[in-house]
Amino acid sequence: MKILHRYVCAFSCALSLLSATAAGKDYADYVNPFIGTTGDGNTFPGAALPFGMVKVGPDCADLQSNSGYRPTGGVKGFSHTHVSGTGGGCKYGNILIAPFFGSRPQPGRQLSRDIETVSPGYFSMILEDGAVEAEMTVSPHAAVHRYTFQSGDSVGILVDAGSILGEHYGFGEAQNLIGSEVRILSDHEIEGYCRADGGWNMGRAYTVYFYASFSRPMSSAGVWKEDELSVGATEAFDDGSHTGAWFAFDKVDKPVEVRVGISYLSEGRAKANCMAEVAGRTFDEVHAAARSAWNDELGKVSISTDNKDELVKFYTALYHSFLQPVDKTGENALWKGSAPYYDDFYCIWDTFRTLHPLFTVIAPEREAAIVNSLIDIYRHEGYMPDGRSGDSNGRTQGGSNADMVVAEAVLKGLPGIDGPAALEAMMKDAEADPGNDARVHGRGGVSDYKKLGYVSTDYERGGTRTLEYAANDYAIAQCAAMLGRDELAERYFARARNWENLWKDIEFEGASGFIMPRKPDGNWHEDYREPTWDYYSSTPPCRLDIEPFNKVPENYLSTGAFTPGVGGNWVNMFYESNSWEYSFYVPHDVARLMERCGGRERFVDRLDRFFNDGHYNITNEPGFLTPCLYIYAGEHAAAVDRIHTILANHYTTGPDGLPGNDDSGSMSSWYAFHKMGFFPVAGQDVYLITAPQFEKVDIALGKGRQLCIEAPGVSDTRRYIASATLNGKPLDRAWFTHGEIADGGVLRFEMTDRPTGWGSGILPPSQSDVK
Amino acid sequence: MKILHRYVCAFSCALSLLSATAAGKDYADYVNPFIGTTGDGNTFPGAALPFGMVKVGPDCADLQSNSGYRPTGGVKGFSHTHVSGTGGGCKYGNILIAPFFGSRPQPGRQLSRDIETVSPGYFSMILEDGAVEAEMTVSPHAAVHRYTFQSGDSVGILVDAGSILGEHYGFGEAQNLIGSEVRILSDHEIEGYCRADGGWNMGRAYTVYFYASFSRPMSSAGVWKEDELSVGATEAFDDGSHTGAWFAFDKVDKPVEVRVGISYLSEGRAKANCMAEVAGRTFDEVHAAARSAWNDELGKVSISTDNKDELVKFYTALYHSFLQPVDKTGENALWKGSAPYYDDFYCIWDTFRTLHPLFTVIAPEREAAIVNSLIDIYRHEGYMPDGRSGDSNGRTQGGSNADMVVAEAVLKGLPGIDGPAALEAMMKDAEADPGNDARVHGRGGVSDYKKLGYVSTDYERGGTRTLEYAANDYAIAQCAAMLGRDELAERYFARARNWENLWKDIEFEGASGFIMPRKPDGNWHEDYREPTWDYYSSTPPCRLDIEPFNKVPENYLSTGAFTPGVGGNWVNMFYESNSWEYSFYVPHDVARLMERCGGRERFVDRLDRFFNDGHYNITNEPGFLTPCLYIYAGEHAAAVDRIHTILANHYTTGPDGLPGNDDSGSMSSWYAFHKMGFFPVAGQDVYLITAPQFEKVDIALGKGRQLCIEAPGVSDTRRYIASATLNGKPLDRAWFTHGEIADGGVLRFEMTDRPTGWGSGILPPSQSDVK
Repeated sequence: MKILHRYVCAFSCALSLLSATAAGKDYADYVNPFIGTTGDGNTFPGAALPFGMVKVGPDCADLQSNSGYRPTGGVKGFSHTHVSGTGGGCKYGNILIAPFFGSRPQPGRQLSRDIETVSPGYFSMILEDGAVEAEMTVSPHAAVHRYTFQSGDSVGILVDAGSILGEHYGFGEAQNLIGSEVRILSDHEIEGYCRADGGWNMGRAYTVYFYASFSRPMSSAGVWKEDELSVGATEAFDDGSHTGAWFAFDKVDKPVEVRVGISYLSEGRAKANCMAEVAGRTFDEVHAAARSAWNDELGKVSISTDNKDELVKFYTALYHSFLQPVDKTGENALWKGSAPYYDDFYCIWDTFRTLHPLFTVIAPEREAAIVNSLIDIYRHEGYMPDGRSGDSNGRTQGGSNADMVVAEAVLKGLPGIDGPAALEAMMKDAEADPGNDARVHGRGGVSDYKKLGYVSTDYERGGTRTLEYAANDYAIAQCAAMLGRDELAERYFARARNWENLWKDIEFEGASGFIMPRKPDGNWHEDYREPTWDYYSSTPPCRLDIEPFNKVPENYLSTGAFTPGVGGNWVNMFYESNSWEYSFYVPHDVARLMERCGGRERFVDRLDRFFNDGHYNITNEPGFLTPCLYIYAGEHAAAVDRIHTILANHYTTGPDGLPGNDDSGSMSSWYAFHKMGFFPVAGQDVYLITAPQFEKVDIALGKGRQLCIEAPGVSDTRRYIASATLNGKPLDRAWFTHGEIADGGVLRFEMTDRPTGWGSGILPPSQSDVK
Repeated sequence: MKILHRYVCAFSCALSLLSATAAGKDYADYVNPFIGTTGDGNTFPGAALPFGMVKVGPDCADLQSNSGYRPTGGVKGFSHTHVSGTGGGCKYGNILIAPFFGSRPQPGRQLSRDIETVSPGYFSMILEDGAVEAEMTVSPHAAVHRYTFQSGDSVGILVDAGSILGEHYGFGEAQNLIGSEVRILSDHEIEGYCRADGGWNMGRAYTVYFYASFSRPMSSAGVWKEDELSVGATEAFDDGSHTGAWFAFDKVDKPVEVRVGISYLSEGRAKANCMAEVAGRTFDEVHAAARSAWNDELGKVSISTDNKDELVKFYTALYHSFLQPVDKTGENALWKGSAPYYDDFYCIWDTFRTLHPLFTVIAPEREAAIVNSLIDIYRHEGYMPDGRSGDSNGRTQGGSNADMVVAEAVLKGLPGIDGPAALEAMMKDAEADPGNDARVHGRGGVSDYKKLGYVSTDYERGGTRTLEYAANDYAIAQCAAMLGRDELAERYFARARNWENLWKDIEFEGASGFIMPRKPDGNWHEDYREPTWDYYSSTPPCRLDIEPFNKVPENYLSTGAFTPGVGGNWVNMFYESNSWEYSFYVPHDVARLMERCGGRERFVDRLDRFFNDGHYNITNEPGFLTPCLYIYAGEHAAAVDRIHTILANHYTTGPDGLPGNDDSGSMSSWYAFHKMGFFPVAGQDVYLITAPQFEKVDIALGKGRQLCIEAPGVSDTRRYIASATLNGKPLDRAWFTHGEIADGGVLRFEMTDRPTGWGSGILPPSQSDVK
């Protein structure tokens, strides 16, 4: 294998570096889509639009990478559907196009690769020692490929309809090919589809249709089924095989372009998408439109720095934040309706904390459309998703956190949300037991939770579930109150206190009180062992649990309930986390949590221990809010210190520059918020003021409204807030509501290099304050 | 509207009436597909094959008939997918073909009709005062239409891809068009699809693809979207519209034939189906093959009578029994695998009692394939269906009666069944709570049932569910015992006694003891009111219950728990039944039931009251076994009398000749068994000997094995059994096992005109006998 030079020309930022604060800048220049592609980031480096359905990019090596991309090894070609930042079994990777040499292809062959060049809406890779350059750009539902062959010899391009990512992944999370079909329509047109199921969310079958139009007529063509080529044949109908088709060209004197329309409805619709979006447009025109679309989104925030790395990290974070969910409005094969339709919520357990709140600030109409699509999914399928991909709900790791997304939209007054419908969708989560489908949607063990006030050790993930359900209930309660449903609000406010039912007053490592396992009879489970996977036990197994796990029972403590950085999984008490971390997760009542921890001072001490002893874990989401908890204790400067440390140590401009799976932009939006200097308390109408990083941040809120955040003289040392004003009025609290900034304004900080007591005047709201 | 003469030539039987006992007979001649098409039968009169995927026939009037057919009113055309005998919201009616006059069509226009002629595999209708005759015949996955126009003027044929049945049905059971697409491929080919969801089972989206090849080139053509015609256009891609295409012909001097391939995978597959099954074959060849396929199935039973009505009723009953489920092996768009794939279990709550047992006797390999498909559905979707249509499970009316079907296959030793896999699938039903999806699959309230021993008034249908779960558990227990899982068997045998937990010792109308509602705290519910549809109550609502019913609470008694002939529905204590009827439903322990009813004499008296006072209801399935219960009390002659009465009064040769919805052949197979002289106890390896009707019945059991049932001299008066022999040995019990007849043999009865005590020597098995 040749040595790869992927980053040599990978990133054009250096050529045109300018301050991004000036008007009309090409913000896309600051984006490095390679950030997060290695390590655990799993970001997608190919060509995509903001929320775009088509994500065209390379599928590498053994097709076992979540994003399709791998930094080393060969590449099989370039497919049109991907996700960004995910973990577990792969999804998508459908309709793969690849160049080949000679008059007929070897389907599945890996091509060697050299230089890669990427930017928003554009991806290029030099293949086979420079024998061909593959370039691609993208529109919402289509892609344009351009293959520039160095020699005029016989070459060709194949369309592999049977290729998918993760076909041989283990743990029941493989994608499975159900069938594929290709048809050569003319000397320059091929259509067909790929149908698959499975992947991380263990989803039902989905079908990706394509229509491909080539810029020159083929000289010869054929189709294949599995390994068998049929030269001259024009169709391979679906019999469950891996099928594909190819066009070969005798003399190639200029680049061959392929315009590919994609649809989840039909080949006809795929053709219509191709015609509407890329037919009759040059590669460069489509590319320019894609870049322009990115600049529209990226330009919503402008930061005052000339530091290249800061610009790159910030705009790449924004870029990654806008890759998912995917706008499939008009492409819903499951029902017809007027509501928007979004897919690839992957998953809301990750994204509700920072990604959706980011949309709420800088893309409120987009967020409203997303929320309406969640409510519409509930209307038609009975539950809002937590995870959803390939049009299938699944899986649900903790609470019903779509409630947080929907509630936040209601509480913040996003346009066009039907409050009562939103409430109904949330209450379905809160009340209806999903039984055996608890990993698919809804709240597993909610009957237990309703009856006992906690999810007992009869169920898996009782810790995560109980704490998140309580936070979810608080979100519902606030909406109910806002909608005048006072009695309902009372009921859910009461349920929001349920986290205390798992709070056990034990002392451990200097901290007082932890979330601990509790039996259905009300007694603490002193010798708790994780639930076994006895398929026929009284614990409802998962619907999708077709190949039951046969986990050996583990002792509770051995799963890492108190081990720094260690987290559990499906069958454990805490998902991707432990009791040290989850015992801080009471976002709606930090005041009461503080009491349970032994008061303000012990709470601050506990936070210090948590961070100093290595319990804090930025690689997953449960601790996203934890650095901010100092603010609730009136210790704003401590929060500033923690946030500065995390930003400095865990985000870089390298391909391994994200601390964990980006999770559809979750890690990236966490970063973006803290770089802007504030942070959302998900599911509530509260933003915390955190640690300003730039002298000036201008945020377009839509409809011409602008929020300007100023922190003159801010620096790594001059990082503490001495005082603040909001629209010229003094602000002695480290938080604000959406209404206070939704029409724009100026939030100005005086910075200092010494910790201050600022922000302790009025602490952020807690349930215990008002109830 | 013209007067219709549908039956004038509807039925060719009279022309060729011969004894069906002679060899090589054309049994199809005795079939009148019009039986059950009016009244409540809802049978499908069009052209179909046994278990065939394509069912081509008329869609009449307002497209609100379950079978597509209506006896009066116009017809819109002839579509390719139907179900037979169903109730509630319509399903299917996809890809409608119709002739028209002039150069362009009026989509949706009704054609007037005159004479209809039908026989197995053939349907014809004279339209528009004789201006055109529409004929159609069928193969497993394709149809051939033949349109004979009387005039050579400009005429045409349209393909309506957007037409479906029941689009505007109420109660949430409408079918909804999601989208459709058409494409004209050449001067004689059209392809496309229809995608819809909903219907009675409230199923997810399904897609029916077609490829249509015309026998002559068109003169002009076009497509439409909704009401807008586009003359000369060749495609209408899917944008959610109702689309269609037409071919017009200038001069028509001979019939126009249309060969239509259907697929659930793709247009390419639809074309392959067309090519494989009907391309290159004449209409008459396809018709002859269809008729031959029917004769192969119908000829498995031969009865000794020259009575035309008896022949017609019997062979039509067999015919109706073989219409569903539908063999979609190779046409599964949801997953790929080697197992058979069947759809249109509609629903097993109806069919497990007699239809599947009939297949077990005369089509054991087919039944084994069906059972393997049920297990495979469990493997891939987590639950076997009760109802399933359009590839979606739903709905479940009572118990998990797929357990009965699967268990019976194991107990009777059908070939190729994986016993442990079958047990696992059944246990999933028995153990895993489906929660909010309880109307979709699984056992609603099973957590209650497991904990309390009955389904309490917290849940809907507690009566039906508790009794059926107990019977299901007995089936599981027997399988477990057979597979050597003794401990498991003990557990389920114990659960099989759970019906007693709802048995309340009250006296009413001369009977002692009834199944009554019971609260979760163990107390009888003295003032029971049906569950309300408070969506957020503790009763889990249905996943599909997107538009919650808002039923006014009803008093228990007012729903007809004791009212002759009155049955409940989803929210009631008993589904399509009442306590009078369900208090007899303990098929696995009639001996114990007899004790609870006050002993043998009171039990017989109770049965007499039940029938004499009009409580017996043949229009639905819960009472299917009840006439046979006399046999368990040693009163065989009484059973004979009841069965004679029902057969004589409720089945005719008229279009309203079925007593209720045929329910995929349930009513018909009930009839067929009793006409053969025996009756299955579903879910057990027991057949009861009932009331021989013919002097000789020859039953082919497959692989050359033959069961001959002889009753010399039997007549309406000489109807009682004096004695019996099985293979020459005296048989003094009114029952036998599958093993006793599976290799063939002779069951011979001596008949008499006086009631006898025959059959009381060894009563049919009951759980209490052996445990």
